Amino acid sequence: MATKNGEVVVSNKQVILKNFVNGFPKESDMYLKTDSISLKVEQGSNAVIIKNLYLSCDPYMRIRMTPIDDPNFPTYPPGSPIQGFGVGKVVESEYPELKKGDLVWGVTGWEEYTLIINPQTLFKIQHTDVPLSYYTGILGMPGITAWAGFYEICAPKKGEYVYISAASGAVGQLVGQFAKLFGCYVVGSAGTKEKVELLKNKFGFDDAFNYKQEHDLNAALKRCFPEGIDIYFENVGGKMLDAVLVNMRAHGRIAACGMISQYNLEHTEGVHNMMNVVYKRIRIEGIMVFDYFPQYAKFLEVVLPSVREGKVVYVEDIAEGLENAPAALIGLFSGRNVGKQVVVVARE
Amino acid sequence: MATKNGEVVVSNKQVILKNFVNGFPKESDMYLKTDSISLKVEQGSNAVIIKNLYLSCDPYMRIRMTPIDDPNFPTYPPGSPIQGFGVGKVVESEYPELKKGDLVWGVTGWEEYTLIINPQTLFKIQHTDVPLSYYTGILGMPGITAWAGFYEICAPKKGEYVYISAASGAVGQLVGQFAKLFGCYVVGSAGTKEKVELLKNKFGFDDAFNYKQEHDLNAALKRCFPEGIDIYFENVGGKMLDAVLVNMRAHGRIAACGMISQYNLEHTEGVHNMMNVVYKRIRIEGIMVFDYFPQYAKFLEVVLPSVREGKVVYVEDIAEGLENAPAALIGLFSGRNVGKQVVVVARE
Repeated sequence: MATKNGEVVVSNKQVILKNFVNGFPKESDMYLKTDSISLKVEQGSNAVIIKNLYLSCDPYMRIRMTPIDDPNFPTYPPGSPIQGFGVGKVVESEYPELKKGDLVWGVTGWEEYTLIINPQTLFKIQHTDVPLSYYTGILGMPGITAWAGFYEICAPKKGEYVYISAASGAVGQLVGQFAKLFGCYVVGSAGTKEKVELLKNKFGFDDAFNYKQEHDLNAALKRCFPEGIDIYFENVGGKMLDAVLVNMRAHGRIAACGMISQYNLEHTEGVHNMMNVVYKRIRIEGIMVFDYFPQYAKFLEVVLPSVREGKVVYVEDIAEGLENAPAALIGLFSGRNVGKQVVVVARE
Repeated sequence: MATKNGEVVVSNKQVILKNFVNGFPKESDMYLKTDSISLKVEQGSNAVIIKNLYLSCDPYMRIRMTPIDDPNFPTYPPGSPIQGFGVGKVVESEYPELKKGDLVWGVTGWEEYTLIINPQTLFKIQHTDVPLSYYTGILGMPGITAWAGFYEICAPKKGEYVYISAASGAVGQLVGQFAKLFGCYVVGSAGTKEKVELLKNKFGFDDAFNYKQEHDLNAALKRCFPEGIDIYFENVGGKMLDAVLVNMRAHGRIAACGMISQYNLEHTEGVHNMMNVVYKRIRIEGIMVFDYFPQYAKFLEVVLPSVREGKVVYVEDIAEGLENAPAALIGLFSGRNVGKQVVVVARE
């Protein structure tokens, strides 16, 4: 920590995107750099500086590593720290709603300290009797995604058959638990035996399968859902979506939350069974979490008690230190993480 | 007409499916046969016999020519007359709700006379000041499809951008006119210059293009919808759906009514741009018209006055005689028909 003209200047380790990514992202697509940052915010600027504590690794971040023409996924500029959701502590503030020492979650940089120009986008953390890292997961973006995706998009009815892909992930494990609490029959798929065990034994799914061990996804779904699927929570896309369409029941609903199997493909897999949407009057609807941010307080009111009472549990996969952040992020695409992938930058 | 033991027996020309169809249907997949039928209904049977007047040629009929595992599309048994919607006159009835001379529309056989075992499925025609053939189109199945698909599935708002494929067809021409009356900006595509002219000059679409003349559907849609598409009424599927997905606006809606471009393909085209559903929170929803049959009276109340006042017009393509029915039906798949394809079996 150095002082320069009365300003405190600290070193600031950063995870930088080297270049736009083609295909599967590699650790070498990112590099660590130590920059410095002044912990002084310009008076009247409305900005804050936060010290990052926990960073969230999310599949959509891959989309931002390649230019696409969509304003929802602004491309990371090569040479700059990548961005994502995280939990941090305010160390300097010119924003009236936040003061030094406040804990927040929201979009931040993959670095030790981040200057946030528009702190209106940050959520102030009010409840600290739960693990702080949960605000990257069950109590943050993935939590609202699961909650809105299941209750609003899927419009569940008690007793319905629910299928979730990438079911042990940040969002999937929550959708499954919400669906069980609601009274649905819930099956999930994941890519290892360990994850399948988690789904059945930790999260209380009725059944689960390892999609990598099934040479015929259609047959696997028929086995798990002899009566068909009412609700599909879509996290993977491609071949899985095709197999699901064949197994959907009339008037089924699909919440399209993500399609992780497709993000690294130059040519995406085609979905061939779209006529099922017509025959079966299926509704497919996309979800983007920021549409539901205005409902965050309501969400917290419902979910926080469930967390405190242990009615909903959450499994995290914690990587220690920014040095391990690139590996943690790319691990999502080979399914290396077990549960929500978090990076600890600092514990306080 | 012969009399046998007091029964009136008449000859009954039929269009028979020869075998299950692979690929594009051909005239030779069907043949004409002259059978005979007794115009006597068993007492207390609840059945009726109708004399078929107008038959409706609809793309979904292709689906029934190949076995698929869907109860909504029971396969036509080879060797029997094919079935479809039609208009007929009751010539004999043991069903209390219908009497000799009544006009009806509903599912019937492709033949001169059809014994209807479950006449509950027939709609009695009450209004005959409009062309009777309209009950195969604007006032029948395609009409309710267009009406429910546009108003219920697409949930339009005034001023929205609406795109319709197969836009001069039985359903498309109505969706476009409904959308214009509602205050939307409407563009349609079709496969000939003549149809494009119809869309613009007869049906009042704001713009239209010939998809066969566009080597880049994406570019064609960008040209017609510089601001993007809010509502897509899907009749064709495949490549067109892919191009539309790229051009949809946030929170757009797609009514999936049919995918005629795919019915004759052994391997359907894959749809590659499904991630747009996520980014843009698109809702895709299938429609099957029989879900809306209970609303038929309400539909008629709204649409019949529009027809009488000429606010909504309807273009039909009339084939004369059962002999020409196979050619009329298969013409749908090369786009030979201009407007709703009807077959006249008899005018009274």
